[in-house]
Amino acid sequence: MIGGDGIGPEVVAEGLRVLRAVHPKVDTTEYDLGARRWHQTGETLPDAVLEELRGHDAILLGAVGDPGVPSGVLERGLLLRLRFELDHHVNLRPVRLYPGVASPLAGDPTIDMIVVREGTEGPYAGAGGVLRRGTPHEVATEESLNTRYGVERVVRDAFRRAARRERRHLTLVHKNNVLTKAGDLWSRAVAEVAPEFPDVRVDYQHVDAASMFFVTDPGRFDVIVTDNMFGDIITDIGAAITGGIGLAASGNLDPSGAHPSMFEPVHGSAPDIAGKQLADPTATVASVAMLLDHLGHAEEAARVEAAVAASLADRVGAGAAALSTRERGEDLAARAVG
Amino acid sequence: MIGGDGIGPEVVAEGLRVLRAVHPKVDTTEYDLGARRWHQTGETLPDAVLEELRGHDAILLGAVGDPGVPSGVLERGLLLRLRFELDHHVNLRPVRLYPGVASPLAGDPTIDMIVVREGTEGPYAGAGGVLRRGTPHEVATEESLNTRYGVERVVRDAFRRAARRERRHLTLVHKNNVLTKAGDLWSRAVAEVAPEFPDVRVDYQHVDAASMFFVTDPGRFDVIVTDNMFGDIITDIGAAITGGIGLAASGNLDPSGAHPSMFEPVHGSAPDIAGKQLADPTATVASVAMLLDHLGHAEEAARVEAAVAASLADRVGAGAAALSTRERGEDLAARAVG
Ligand SMILES: CC(C)[C@H](C(=O)O)[C@@H](O)C(=O)O
Ligand SMILES: CC(C)[C@H](C(=O)O)[C@@H](O)C(=O)O
Repeated sequence: MIGGDGIGPEVVAEGLRVLRAVHPKVDTTEYDLGARRWHQTGETLPDAVLEELRGHDAILLGAVGDPGVPSGVLERGLLLRLRFELDHHVNLRPVRLYPGVASPLAGDPTIDMIVVREGTEGPYAGAGGVLRRGTPHEVATEESLNTRYGVERVVRDAFRRAARRERRHLTLVHKNNVLTKAGDLWSRAVAEVAPEFPDVRVDYQHVDAASMFFVTDPGRFDVIVTDNMFGDIITDIGAAITGGIGLAASGNLDPSGAHPSMFEPVHGSAPDIAGKQLADPTATVASVAMLLDHLGHAEEAARVEAAVAASLADRVGAGAAALSTRERGEDLAARAVG
Repeated sequence: MIGGDGIGPEVVAEGLRVLRAVHPKVDTTEYDLGARRWHQTGETLPDAVLEELRGHDAILLGAVGDPGVPSGVLERGLLLRLRFELDHHVNLRPVRLYPGVASPLAGDPTIDMIVVREGTEGPYAGAGGVLRRGTPHEVATEESLNTRYGVERVVRDAFRRAARRERRHLTLVHKNNVLTKAGDLWSRAVAEVAPEFPDVRVDYQHVDAASMFFVTDPGRFDVIVTDNMFGDIITDIGAAITGGIGLAASGNLDPSGAHPSMFEPVHGSAPDIAGKQLADPTATVASVAMLLDHLGHAEEAARVEAAVAASLADRVGAGAAALSTRERGEDLAARAVG
């Protein structure tokens, strides 16, 4: 458990409540990481902590960060370091409009897709450099690193997920008309893995067109596989069209099981409402469903997922009670137990 | 004039009609570039043609491409080559919801912003390489090149535009928490130019958050300045929320005037409806307004812009006539003449 900062500890507590309700035998260790620790000690992710984390089955993370930490410190030093060190190459982000949830899109579209975002390479590799910083002749580079190994494994994972779904439709999202080298690698990887999954229909969209279709025709997507940066952007559009980042769940997976996977709501630490029991733990609880599913507890995952869906459906209308963070967690736990 | 492929020549003809209506003294040269030429000769942009183009005041481009041309050939060989060779560092894209146009966003938001997208560097530079192509050990890189010179000039241009607007609000969109080297360069350039424009309020959004706000709260943006790739993506979201890519205009500007600027609708060549007089030339005509404005004909630009707005407002409701491409061009020309 990494509660983190702001509302993080509050929502993680409710995630754990629901987890324990459906799966009483859980051992947990709490780790103090995030902005608070950084302010106190200057540490983001000490090596010893990383080694301990490796011994766990899964990580549940709330949110880290506060306005006092310079941009990039916790992102590169903690969140991305965890994703890279623990080989979280499948960054899984469901984009689903639950019944009862209002979308900002007119006409109540049906939205039910999963984005499989690559998590360990691309523009997130941290490669690049700066020359003559602070002078008129400054040059700064960012390098996107893409390997056949890294791309193929996430592409195959996405195919597997697509093959298990009703529509069996996989879309590669990239920008292969401009990023011709990486785009070519991605396109060939998809074309070459496709014959292993003859039942899956495959197509391609440039990231700009895909971003447009998220708004004008999101129903056309089923499973998307994409690069780390494009995935970052389109999953936020995905969150926006399905009721906001406050409901979006995510899993940072190493599907091989060699390293613990990490589950986290997509929202931030929201310092303005921290400690007030005002945060909605629903995205964390939905992330717990992903955690259970990843560890092979499909039936328990389905119960938590159903609890989330039922709770959201029941919130429709002005009569719905505003629950505190804890009350919402208790309600979700009760629904999950049945 | 580069009509290009598909509907390109049809919409450019109407753009020219409107241009001539408000500004009778226009000399034009037509250039045959695009998919058709490539299929016939293998040429994308011969050096001699590029040299001739340099002698013009402005370029009006329809759309290029057809499904038979491999991805990247015309993009890198023609469109991007023009932008780079002619130093089109300000890729200007208004994102405006005209009265009468239906947005896919619920609740009829007010949307009136301009995106100033850098056009000559970043991930579009074409730098990068491939090693061991086609093997399990393939590595492909894409390099984003960012210079203080290139960033500062587009940032200053965006400040100038923001200073002329009512809200005087400039937002830098980047991903400086992950792309720390380029992000730092962009952030410092904005911070250091800001004192020249004390009336402009400045803020910053990560590209993922900005993409979300385009959907949930687009009214918060006034002028955005951003990198080439982020600009590509967010302007397509911008087109989606303001009635579709069919209405979006753009200018590829060299504000110094050293090279001809290029104006083009954001839509593609739409081969399926080509030659049928079904295409809507409105985005091309709106691009002509930008062309006039760029060349210093502000009053004529305003008349064309007003014609576009009035035409869109008049299309509301089921009674609105469906006009052919030519009829729409004639109608817009008549309105612009007044
Ligand atoms: C906080 C940041 C590093 C992160 C990312 O860019 O991946 C976030 O935006 C996300 O999507 O999880
Ligand atoms: C066609 C392509 C090269 C181009 C771009 O990526 O800039 C287009 O998407 C645009 O936005 O003008």
